[in-house]
Amino acid sequence: MNKIKVGIINVTGYVGAELARLLCRHLGVELISVTGRSEVGKKLGDVFPHLSPIDLSIEAEPEDAGLVLSALPHKASAEVVLSLLEKGIKVVDLSADFRLKDAEEYQQWYKFIHPAPGLLREAVYGLTELHRHQVASSRLVANPGCYPVSAILALAPPVKEGLIYPDIIIDSKSGVSGAGRALSLNAHYSETSDNVSAYALEGHRHLPEVIQELKVLHPNFSPSITFVPHLVPMTRGILSSCYAKLLEGKMANSERGKAELKELYRGFYKGEPFVKVVDTPPQTKQTWGSNLCLIYPTIDLRTGRLIVISCLDNLVKGAAGQAVQNMNLMLGFPETMGLEALAIYP
Amino acid sequence: MNKIKVGIINVTGYVGAELARLLCRHLGVELISVTGRSEVGKKLGDVFPHLSPIDLSIEAEPEDAGLVLSALPHKASAEVVLSLLEKGIKVVDLSADFRLKDAEEYQQWYKFIHPAPGLLREAVYGLTELHRHQVASSRLVANPGCYPVSAILALAPPVKEGLIYPDIIIDSKSGVSGAGRALSLNAHYSETSDNVSAYALEGHRHLPEVIQELKVLHPNFSPSITFVPHLVPMTRGILSSCYAKLLEGKMANSERGKAELKELYRGFYKGEPFVKVVDTPPQTKQTWGSNLCLIYPTIDLRTGRLIVISCLDNLVKGAAGQAVQNMNLMLGFPETMGLEALAIYP
Amino acid sequence: MNKIKVGIINVTGYVGAELARLLCRHLGVELISVTGRSEVGKKLGDVFPHLSPIDLSIEAEPEDAGLVLSALPHKASAEVVLSLLEKGIKVVDLSADFRLKDAEEYQQWYKFIHPAPGLLREAVYGLTELHRHQVASSRLVANPGCYPVSAILALAPPVKEGLIYPDIIIDSKSGVSGAGRALSLNAHYSETSDNVSAYALEGHRHLPEVIQELKVLHPNFSPSITFVPHLVPMTRGILSSCYAKLLEGKMANSERGKAELKELYRGFYKGEPFVKVVDTPPQTKQTWGSNLCLIYPTIDLRTGRLIVISCLDNLVKGAAGQAVQNMNLMLGFPETMGLEALAIYP
Amino acid sequence: MNKIKVGIINVTGYVGAELARLLCRHLGVELISVTGRSEVGKKLGDVFPHLSPIDLSIEAEPEDAGLVLSALPHKASAEVVLSLLEKGIKVVDLSADFRLKDAEEYQQWYKFIHPAPGLLREAVYGLTELHRHQVASSRLVANPGCYPVSAILALAPPVKEGLIYPDIIIDSKSGVSGAGRALSLNAHYSETSDNVSAYALEGHRHLPEVIQELKVLHPNFSPSITFVPHLVPMTRGILSSCYAKLLEGKMANSERGKAELKELYRGFYKGEPFVKVVDTPPQTKQTWGSNLCLIYPTIDLRTGRLIVISCLDNLVKGAAGQAVQNMNLMLGFPETMGLEALAIYP
Repeated sequence: MNKIKVGIINVTGYVGAELARLLCRHLGVELISVTGRSEVGKKLGDVFPHLSPIDLSIEAEPEDAGLVLSALPHKASAEVVLSLLEKGIKVVDLSADFRLKDAEEYQQWYKFIHPAPGLLREAVYGLTELHRHQVASSRLVANPGCYPVSAILALAPPVKEGLIYPDIIIDSKSGVSGAGRALSLNAHYSETSDNVSAYALEGHRHLPEVIQELKVLHPNFSPSITFVPHLVPMTRGILSSCYAKLLEGKMANSERGKAELKELYRGFYKGEPFVKVVDTPPQTKQTWGSNLCLIYPTIDLRTGRLIVISCLDNLVKGAAGQAVQNMNLMLGFPETMGLEALAIYP
Repeated sequence: MNKIKVGIINVTGYVGAELARLLCRHLGVELISVTGRSEVGKKLGDVFPHLSPIDLSIEAEPEDAGLVLSALPHKASAEVVLSLLEKGIKVVDLSADFRLKDAEEYQQWYKFIHPAPGLLREAVYGLTELHRHQVASSRLVANPGCYPVSAILALAPPVKEGLIYPDIIIDSKSGVSGAGRALSLNAHYSETSDNVSAYALEGHRHLPEVIQELKVLHPNFSPSITFVPHLVPMTRGILSSCYAKLLEGKMANSERGKAELKELYRGFYKGEPFVKVVDTPPQTKQTWGSNLCLIYPTIDLRTGRLIVISCLDNLVKGAAGQAVQNMNLMLGFPETMGLEALAIYP
Repeated sequence: MNKIKVGIINVTGYVGAELARLLCRHLGVELISVTGRSEVGKKLGDVFPHLSPIDLSIEAEPEDAGLVLSALPHKASAEVVLSLLEKGIKVVDLSADFRLKDAEEYQQWYKFIHPAPGLLREAVYGLTELHRHQVASSRLVANPGCYPVSAILALAPPVKEGLIYPDIIIDSKSGVSGAGRALSLNAHYSETSDNVSAYALEGHRHLPEVIQELKVLHPNFSPSITFVPHLVPMTRGILSSCYAKLLEGKMANSERGKAELKELYRGFYKGEPFVKVVDTPPQTKQTWGSNLCLIYPTIDLRTGRLIVISCLDNLVKGAAGQAVQNMNLMLGFPETMGLEALAIYP
Repeated sequence: MNKIKVGIINVTGYVGAELARLLCRHLGVELISVTGRSEVGKKLGDVFPHLSPIDLSIEAEPEDAGLVLSALPHKASAEVVLSLLEKGIKVVDLSADFRLKDAEEYQQWYKFIHPAPGLLREAVYGLTELHRHQVASSRLVANPGCYPVSAILALAPPVKEGLIYPDIIIDSKSGVSGAGRALSLNAHYSETSDNVSAYALEGHRHLPEVIQELKVLHPNFSPSITFVPHLVPMTRGILSSCYAKLLEGKMANSERGKAELKELYRGFYKGEPFVKVVDTPPQTKQTWGSNLCLIYPTIDLRTGRLIVISCLDNLVKGAAGQAVQNMNLMLGFPETMGLEALAIYP
């Protein structure tokens, strides 16, 4: 098979490095170029020793390729994406720049005027399970945020089926790698270990994506979501606990209802290679290094409330693995190619 | 000052050991006896090297004392407490046995017929901040569960003031020491590190305490609470994130409302030595080894929802420190005696 | 290609589970049978959710296969190995039972009379880098202990070249998974996290393997080794710090000597796919989930002392990956088959 | 009792904050001033919430006091110390600036010309157990480095008694707080957790202190020490494993010899409040938050080699607690004042 040439922009962060890890063993593509905003000229293996088998040096500018994955931060990414598309290069953008359909909402959350609002409609929100066909035919896929993957997959079935009231709580717990490789007191070992905290109580930028995508599933649904992310002392992993009241008369508030609920989820995700509806509450460690999202839906019979627990590896299904899944479809490969590895446990 | 003799029952668990740590430096009491269900005959310092300065051996039966603190599990504790009270010994019971006022509810949650239902009314629920006077005059104080301390203190002000709807979510995150020193796969390092999970989704035994105490604060309030505990990879600490809708017309959904809310909490806990209403979201590590509960109340202005984050050290304010606080009142000491140490950070 | 059928004995521990993880994606073999001493009858995915893609149930007895890997503890393993060999099944034994060539030494360290001393000479010590040809033609390979892999690979070059005095210190630091999945206070999260300790100061069972193999490299060399293992709070990884005096006149005590030393190591491990001589002190995390052993040799110029730091993932190169490497040779596959994955970092 | 006024210079690092924690509950002193090189003007509790009970703001310049403790880095500290001494203020300097007696050696290791070489002789090396009387009468005490405290206390008895050969290996394992609060990739949670590494293989600055002090104990002893520090994933704690050959004919290479060795250590540290010779290998967690150093000496009977394991909390006995111990003597207080707290375990 002729391999398709691909590049990574901004390989020097955790998401970029994770893309490199996955792509270097991918049978359908050849990684020909990696760029960085720092460390230019260094060998990739000198920055990340675990990537030593990849014989590339970090460049300032990407080479032409069939597809490029951008792991730049928002704003910086949009600018690069524009020029890549103009050259006819397909793009998976892992930043937030093309996730929101509404340029004003983007401006409100990200505090800058979107440079290419015309592309917002064209870009496909790359949660593959919900937009598989559009992803396959797109030249620009906006890879979702790590929290939204866990929250949207957890809530999509009951929202689509119209089973819940719009009052929704999403209480998420994330490992520290979600904050990236940049230095900050929040990622300092001595401050972060043996510690749990909530943050972004004024509103986290991942919230509008979640609202947007739940509305797509059920246009009459106007969710009122409180989303609170928490930082927990682990490197990888997101666990989202989602709470909503069940509408009366839709699902029995009983053991039978719990079984029906699980069947509904099973049906919704039937055949999905990377979403598993599980029988016991899942643990983030069961997804370490894999592209899986594990989902456990149940009913709190005392209150008639839906509880859904979902978890994933924030750097894989929450970022780089999700991007490879999208890339596979955009390039005509089997969706699971290069993503077959099982989680590493313990 | 003549020191009062006290004893600890079941010193061999983490709560028992933490009681010993606190009592051995307490200026008003003399620790004269420690018992265990295992390790009888051993020196305390051979089981817990950090307790070597305490020159006591572990006995099978407690010695007579002015007050005894029981760190036995439920059921086992009730039986011992009865015989102590008959001897005229005051008791702080750290088990769940005397927390619930209703013997039937106790039986439903703990699956055994309460041996002394007559004492349930007399026993004082030992969340000192809510029942200070009764604690001071009681011979039997039921020390609250670790999760309930964090949840009740977080929710007491708005419940008492009638500010919220009864639909409440309590999403708690606990360190591993909350599960005690017993061996289990859930406390196995390789399974627990780098891992987060939800548990007790069918209902956790700490839930009825929380409901009971919130009702005491506002008898017409019938809370519908979903409480989901999570296990996070740290040794000590509980962080509870509490969510409830604000009743319309009570508190402005604005920055001013947020400030008023904080003032309400500040007023409620005015003068409390161990409850601090803080200006930024608190972190469990800020309470490590101390008897503090830190509380941060705010309003999610997008949804008009109350969010309260509270945190504490589950072995101190969530157990042994809370017990010493109660003991101090029962013995006529200043409430803060022996609990003055600052948290150890980082 | 016709896949060769293989089985795993005692899949329910961490080493067994890691074998299953590696074999289920191996292109040359088909995993047909997994046994356990507990959990018999359960689906493998119910015991280890990350292994759910493997559609096997845990059996009491292994099925006939071309090759079987035994992850039983010592003594239990020897008994099973005998019967497998009699059936003509090749065996990689991950226990200690066939590592030592001397039945008396075995008895002294393992406190039981070896049931098959006649096999000790035949069994090949499966540190592939040192015994590649014998492994390839053997029907019984004794997979080395996790500590010895790190120590022998670190010390082999200077021992073979006769560069050091026999006084050697090996100070090793291991993650908790090395102690297995069995429950013990030493593996209890609350006791193990934020903690470092030395153990087995009276002598660890991995010591005689190291001595035996260093003597094989240089028969006149009589090493006097002090080996002290330490438990550190991480799940996977071993880092061994090895110290020995350089013989005078062999290697310059200078920067040039350091460079020559590195070249000596580079030459010794030239072409090895899984041993990398690195330019900066390696970190265990750089090997997480991979079959790599990283080695950094240097000279302490103040004292003329050789220092070698080596590290690996104790469950992969220290156990299951090493076993697959051996299996590949025994079955005629490329040595790296199924072991190509890069480390997962961070 | 009239409290003596004391100040802390550079309270914004971990050592400075730990000094504040210990001094704020000290019965003999009043903390009147804290300075910082950053955060000037902020309340101490806003920078470190656990220090909120201390009602001080961070100043640029220290106030006059009876004694000042400097937690500045080397070089910066020497300059401040000079001016304090000129004002008649006693100083405990926690930097490295006055630890070495030889200005040239200082320059060689710290790469700057010492500004006050005349004070090097006067300054007392503040390892209290070895220099108690000089500390008590000194106006300038140089608090030892964290590694040296653990290493010197571990090796002092056999060095003083002339029991060992000069070839010594010190393999130390430190928690991350030893690197301070400054931001660096080495202290980044995602890089440091689940990871162990060796560093400073070219020579660590704490080595010359150790050599200097061992020579003081036995002037004819010329130790040839290899010291390799390791970073392990925990916040607090140092464990040092020390290795040396026993001189023949001094101590029996037998169980009896091991017992005699322990008695030698017990005798050496008789009456010491903060050094405990223990019967089982100690763990860093047993010292968390306390001023203890635990020491376990033994003999490797296979090789006739002395092994000594010592451990302590690097921020307490390795820094701030050691400084308070020195301060107590300098001010005429009981040596243990303010340092009575037991370790917090687990």
